[in-house]
Parts: sequence; structure tokens; C-alpha cells
Amino acid sequence: MRTRPLKVALLGCGVVGSEVARIMTTHADDLAARIGAPVELAGVAVRRPDKVRGGIDPSLITTDATALVKRGDIDVVVEVIGGIEPARALITTAFEHGASVVSANKALLAQDGATLYAAAERHGQDLYYEAAVAGAIPLIRPLRESLAGDKINRVMGIVNGTTNFILDKMDSTGAGYQEALDEATALGYAEADPTADVEGFDAAAKAAILAGIAFHTRVRLDDVYREGMTEVTAADFASARQMGCTIKLLAICERAADGESVTARVHPAMIPLSHPLASVREAYNAVFVEAEAAGRLMFYGPGAGGSPTASAVLGDVVAVCRNRLNEATGPGESAYTQLPVSPMGDVVTRYHISLDVADKPGVLAQVATVFAEHGVSIDTVRQQGKDGEASLVVVTHRAADAALSGTVEALRKLDTVRGVASIMRVEGE
Amino acid sequence: MRTRPLKVALLGCGVVGSEVARIMTTHADDLAARIGAPVELAGVAVRRPDKVRGGIDPSLITTDATALVKRGDIDVVVEVIGGIEPARALITTAFEHGASVVSANKALLAQDGATLYAAAERHGQDLYYEAAVAGAIPLIRPLRESLAGDKINRVMGIVNGTTNFILDKMDSTGAGYQEALDEATALGYAEADPTADVEGFDAAAKAAILAGIAFHTRVRLDDVYREGMTEVTAADFASARQMGCTIKLLAICERAADGESVTARVHPAMIPLSHPLASVREAYNAVFVEAEAAGRLMFYGPGAGGSPTASAVLGDVVAVCRNRLNEATGPGESAYTQLPVSPMGDVVTRYHISLDVADKPGVLAQVATVFAEHGVSIDTVRQQGKDGEASLVVVTHRAADAALSGTVEALRKLDTVRGVASIMRVEGE
Ligand SMILES: NC(=O)c1ccc[n+]([C@@H]2O[C@H](COP(=O)([O-])OP(=O)(O)OC[C@H]3O[C@@H](n4cnc5c(N)ncnc54)[C@H](OP(=O)(O)O)[C@@H]3O)[C@@H](O)[C@H]2O)c1
Ligand SMILES: NC(=O)c1ccc[n+]([C@@H]2O[C@H](COP(=O)([O-])OP(=O)(O)OC[C@H]3O[C@@H](n4cnc5c(N)ncnc54)[C@H](OP(=O)(O)O)[C@@H]3O)[C@@H](O)[C@H]2O)c1
Repeated sequence: MRTRPLKVALLGCGVVGSEVARIMTTHADDLAARIGAPVELAGVAVRRPDKVRGGIDPSLITTDATALVKRGDIDVVVEVIGGIEPARALITTAFEHGASVVSANKALLAQDGATLYAAAERHGQDLYYEAAVAGAIPLIRPLRESLAGDKINRVMGIVNGTTNFILDKMDSTGAGYQEALDEATALGYAEADPTADVEGFDAAAKAAILAGIAFHTRVRLDDVYREGMTEVTAADFASARQMGCTIKLLAICERAADGESVTARVHPAMIPLSHPLASVREAYNAVFVEAEAAGRLMFYGPGAGGSPTASAVLGDVVAVCRNRLNEATGPGESAYTQLPVSPMGDVVTRYHISLDVADKPGVLAQVATVFAEHGVSIDTVRQQGKDGEASLVVVTHRAADAALSGTVEALRKLDTVRGVASIMRVEGE
Repeated sequence: MRTRPLKVALLGCGVVGSEVARIMTTHADDLAARIGAPVELAGVAVRRPDKVRGGIDPSLITTDATALVKRGDIDVVVEVIGGIEPARALITTAFEHGASVVSANKALLAQDGATLYAAAERHGQDLYYEAAVAGAIPLIRPLRESLAGDKINRVMGIVNGTTNFILDKMDSTGAGYQEALDEATALGYAEADPTADVEGFDAAAKAAILAGIAFHTRVRLDDVYREGMTEVTAADFASARQMGCTIKLLAICERAADGESVTARVHPAMIPLSHPLASVREAYNAVFVEAEAAGRLMFYGPGAGGSPTASAVLGDVVAVCRNRLNEATGPGESAYTQLPVSPMGDVVTRYHISLDVADKPGVLAQVATVFAEHGVSIDTVRQQGKDGEASLVVVTHRAADAALSGTVEALRKLDTVRGVASIMRVEGE
């Protein structure tokens, strides 16, 4: 074994960073054996230098992250600060100064992955980011490497633990959204400002990253259609149950049937209870992958948390260190297909629509006519009446999202339709 | 991109090999883009040269596998013949002649992986074998690479599709073993001679491979305790259901509580219906991994079949080709911990024991005394009487397998115990 250690600069020492530092210390011998050389923590950049950080040599702490990555003797920069700047500038500076980078920063990778990849390639360095999607679950490496000999057609996953916790609570207790969110907040599963999670921004970033890797093309955050889950109600869960379904916030990346374009989207959807994703409880994450030769695969595990995320970061650190000892680099960006990303209107799926209608003869015929005029074929209709008011629950066959939107718009104009109570996509069949 | 192609020699063109050849042809452009150079099928070794093999240039077919691997211009040898010889000799010859190897051969890797690894290392070549365990499911790479920064404590999986199909049938239809086996055979899920599957030999080979990788030590096939599932009865499933469990044939690799030894075993076991492995149906495989930092992960997918297995083989081909272009090799054997493999008697788990006993007062006290004398603590007892005969179902707390064996031996000697109807381990809690 080489005795000169590889040097790691840790940028950020919060929830994830402190666990990375801890494991690097407590498991130093194992890491050395697996890499073929010792690894050493060469510096730790933080914002608040005076905070007590147990187990970390205070002389390693600095507030000057830029100087740390510019030192020139750093082999691997671990970026666990988060956000766009200064993370982006620090990463590109790291490449310029001969270091490879391991990052957990989904926001940055989704927004500007291409720039980072290009910088890594220009300087012959590695950019690894297993921790950025689905925390501890090995997903980036299986998609980039294990399935490199296959053609992936679909990636569908629960990639946000906070929202899965909330939806699981609503499902199992009958609670409404706000009540379930309050519980998630009290238990530390939701942040004080839960917007990024509940509005689907976090999941959308992950969808962009996953779609790019799965389809070997470039998908930006703006390309991802996004709907949050704040409007899912207890009534939606009741409807879902009547169909043998539950509701999950899904990130779905698909290749179009003709193979010439892709789509990426995040929204709540009903999925059958028999689908493997339906039984993903609490804050767990799981990603379902459909590949041409491999068939249907699923990857399941904790999607966040300090130590699970640190596990993924350190797996990347080991890989990057091995690459350095080999004087090689791992797979870079693979965006050779340059497939266009189609808008949401082109997505083809099924729908569950609840309408409040007048309880009089002929309403169903009117409604059915509107669906037919828009080319949306109906699978089942359920009619329930009470006191002159009635509800109609329509489940469609597969149709384009644009056709469904047109249908709904036309339905709203019918005198006999008092309101559209909910529209939910049905996936996983 | 480099234009000179990398050359692949395919040894075996059966269920798996024919799919490897097909995908290499139909997806040549994708493979080239992902590798950074084209790959070319340079020769295909088979036993029966005259068999019609659609889509394969007949001039590539040879019966002289040895000459093919000795050609000297081969970059990657794909070994999908199976069995010990000539596969082993061909693989070592390939290394000697400057080729890396991708194999799907679990039997050979479990029996003699160390020799193959040593040969690969001596000649600076890669040995990859993702397809050898759980077919298409990315498992070897996640364990070897994604979790390289973590400490794995337990790997527990359904790694044989045939037996899972049979057990799932028994569970869902109430069928007996023979009836379910007949159905599996009729549907092509079981071979004419199902011994390797139903007696657990196939799963034991996979357990040896998984334990070695997970614990960074060497585990040989002989180190794996093995019990088949031919004696699982419909009555066992009924008992399992009463406990909220089902029965699966599990491969379990564990680190001992003190961390100083490991165990590997294959046997049928009850697991709670709430455990993610319980819902793995039909011939699917799934592997549950518990790691110190990452927590509980699960990998799920098709464990066999021509095209899923070929997907895994080709993922390895891409990786090995990239390594060659980088003039590097991937991770080799990592057996640095040299942990001893403890015998089955040291395994600690829970047990479900059904006894046929005389229906008279004091029997329960006698039986309980025997458990206590052997230090096996009882969790629950259920007593059922009919016509002077009775049955006692005992579920224990965690105990060493040796203590349980001693208990059962002593129970058999009691006059009041007419027979031990079944003993089954209870896992996954
Ligand atoms: N937490 C998770 O479960 C999880 C899961 C997957 C991915 N991630 C990703 O991992 C990254 C880090 O997340 P986290 O939860 O560990 O965040 P965190 O707890 O907020 O920690 C951020 C760290 O960065 C430091 N920092 C902030 N601005 C800095 C600057 N300008 N220069 C130097 N250091 C600076 C902070 O210093 P102080 O300590 O002095 O405040 C803190 O140590 C994010 O990209 C996140 O998306 C997190
Ligand atoms: N089938 C699966 O689902 C699966 C899944 C995971 C792993 N695997 C592993 O993959 C390997 C191959 O399995 P398979 O199902 O593809 O087997 P298979 O269908 O029996 O094919 C074996 C191939 O090897 C050829 N062969 C046999 N002896 C040979 C020799 N001495 N020299 C040259 N070629 C020879 C045969 O030639 P002919 O065509 O002329 O008979 C045949 O093409 C095994 O190690 C198996 O354990 C299989």
C-alpha cells in the first residue's frame, strides 16, 4: 500500500459534513485498505469557525474555503455546503487546482451540471455525486455503470423523504395535509420552511439529474414539469383506496414511445397498492427503473440524513481516490443522445377526475361527450348522488396530458358541472 | 472517440450468451458512445458449431475456445459457459493472454474466486461478475463500490428465482411443495433436475460471493451452511400466517456482534409480512443490505433470464472497456479483513418449533424446562389439543443455533414429545 496519504478537503461541516468527517476518522483503516492508500482530512471549511465540532482537530477548521481548494495539494474536494454559490465557484476552482470533486448538491447539479462536467473534463478530474439523489441509495452508479449496457426507458421514484412521510401519514391515519405536515415538522422530517419539499422543487432537481443520466442527454431543472403535493386531500386518499391505490409524490422520467424525446415530471399520483413503490413507508425513498434488457428494478433505502448521505459521499471518495491512484478518471457526462425534452402536454398517462355535477338525467352523457370530443377514452365512471348534487368519478385510459387539460377546460364550461374537485394522474400500471 | 474497436470474445452462446451477442449488435452505437470506442464481437465459442444462431455471423463461431482466448488481440473475454471446467482454465488463459474477463459463473466464483482474482491481479486484468449474483440487479457494484465507504453488517436476500416462485405459489394457493414445483417446471421456472435450486446450492454459491464482498474477507462455498426448501409444507405456511409471516428461502450473511467473525447460510425462514422481502413475488430476487451509516437498503429485480443477465454482463463489459481505455483496472479482490467464518452453531436467531405432544397436564412445564436448561428463552407458546394428541408451537427469543439444536435433541428424548413436526428460523425483525 502507498503510504503517502490522499488529501481530502471538506467544504461544509453540517448535517452531512460532520458525519463524513466522523467516518473518515473512525474508519480510517478500512478506507485505507479499500483505496490502497490512507486518506487524510486536510482541511474543513465552515461559516462559523467558533462552533464546537466534536472529533475534528480545530487546526483544520477554516472560513476561507477558496484558499483551501487552491492549496494545490488537495486530491479530493468534498462539497457539502449546498446552494448555488459559493459551491459552484469552489467546485470549479477545485478542478482548476487539480482536485477531483464529490458533491451532494442536487440543486447545483440540476441547475448547472453541464458547466461542472465540462470543467471536470477540461481539467481531467472526476465529478461524483451519488449522494445528490436518494441519499444513501446507490442509484447514480447503478444507472451510470451497471446499466451502461442497457437501454433505460423509465425511471419512476419516490425521491423526497419529507413528502413521503406526510403522504404516508395521511394514508395511514386519514389526516389532512396540514395535520400531517405539522407532525412531520415536529418529528424533524420537515424543515421550518418546507416549500422546497412540498412544492416538489427538491424532487424536480433529482428528476433532472436522473433523466440526464438515464437517457444520456441533458435535462435542465426548467425542463422538469413540477406540481407540489399541498393540495392532496384526505378525500383524494379515500378515492385512491376505492381504486386499490395510494398516493405518492413521484418523479417520473420517460423516454417517448418513438424513442425520439424524453419527459421529466414531478407530481402526486395514484399508484396501485400492488406496485412496489406503494409500500415505501415513512421517509424512505425508492426508485423504480425499467430497462429494455434488465426489466424492472427497484432501489430502496433512506433518502436523507447525515450518516446515510455520508455513506454515499464516502463511497464516491473511495472511487475517486482509486481513480487517482490509477491515474484515471471515472465516467464523465454522457449526453451523446441529445434528445429533446418534451413538454408536459405530450406526456401520456391515465387520469382520475372527480367532478361535482348536477344530479339530473343526461349529465353523464354530456360529460362522456366532452371526453370523446377530446379523444380521451374513459375506462370507468362512478356516479354518486345526494340531495340534487352528485359526484362523478372518471378514470381514463391513457391519454396525452394536453388532451386531458382540454377536456377539463371544456368540462368546466358545462352548466351541469359545478366544479372539478380533483384531477390526479394514475401511474404504475 | 477512438475508432479502433475493442474486441470481445464470447465463450458460450446459450440463454445468456445469445442475448449478449444480440444486444452487442443491436445497440452497438450506444455501447460505443458510452465506452468511447466501438466494441466488436471477435469470436463466439460453442460446443455445437452447427446449431443455427440467428443474428451471429457464422464465421465467428468456433469450438476451440482456448484458441480464441489465446489469440492475443482480445480485450475482453465474456465467459457464459458455466460450470467449473473448462471455464476456469479459459479464464486464467484469458488473463495470461492480456484479456480482462466478465463472467456470470457463480459456481466457479464461489468455489475458486480467490484463484481467479489472483490470476487477474498477476496479469493486471479486470475480473467482473455482476451477473453471477441476482442476475440483472446491480448488487456486486453497489457493494464493492457504492458502499466502499461504509461498514456492511448484514446481507439478506432472495437470490434464487426458482425457489421463490415455488414458495410464492405455496403461499398464495395453499399448494404443497411437489404441486408448486410441478407448476414451476411446466412454466419453465424450474429445470428438469431442480436440485441445485431447491436444495439451496445455487443460493449458497451466491451467499459465498456476497459475504466475501460485503465483509472484505474470503468465504468459500464450503463455509456456507445450507438447507434446501423441499421440506417446507403447506402446514408451515399456515403456521407462518398465524404469526403474520411468510416463508422465503434466504441467503444470509452476517457479521458477528463482536465484529470478529462472519457467518453465511442458506435456509428457509419465516419473515414478517411487513418486511420488504416478504412482498417479493414470483421469480423476482431482492437483496436487503444493512450498513452502519447507510442503514437499510434493498435491491430488487429479475434474478435470471437471458436478457436481464445479459444486461448485467454488458454493464461489466462497458466498465472493463473503459478501464482498458484508461489503462487502468477496477477494484480487485478486497479480502483484507481475513475474518474467520463461524459455523452455523454460532448463528444467533429466532426459532419457530412445532411439537406433537401428549395431551396431558405438565407437558408444557416439561418442555419449558428443556428450553430453559439450554438457555433458550421462549417468546410465545401456543397449545392446541385434539383427541389425546396436542401440538405445541414455541417461538423463541434470539438464541445460538447450537443451543437450539441441543434443545431439540433433548425435546426428542422426552416421553411426552411424540415428534418434532417442524423447526423454522424466524428472520427479519
Ligand atoms: N441533510 C441531508 O439529509 C442531505 C441529504 C442529501 C443531500 N444533502 C445535500 O448535502 C449538502 C449539505 O447539506 P447539509 O444538510 O449537511 O447542510 P447544513 O447542515 O446546512 O451544513 C452546511 C455546512 O456548510 C457550511 N457553510 C455554509 N456556507 C458556507 C460558506 N460560504 N463557506 C464555507 N462553509 C459554508 C456551514 O457552516 P457552519 O457549520 O459554520 O454553519 C455548514 O457546516 C446540500 O447540498 C444538501 O442538499 C443533504
Ligand atoms: N440463464 C440464466 O438465467 C443465468 C442467470 C445468471 C447467471 N447465469 C450463468 O450464466 C452462465 C451461462 O448460463 P446459460 O443459461 O446461458 O447456459 P446455457 O444456455 O447452457 O449455455 C451454455 C453455452 O456454453 C456453450 N458451451 C458449453 N460447453 C462449452 C465448451 N466446452 N466450450 C465452448 N462452449 C461451451 C454451449 O454451447 P452450445 O450452444 O453449443 O450448447 C452454450 O452455448 C452460467 O454460469 C450460469 O450460471 C445464467
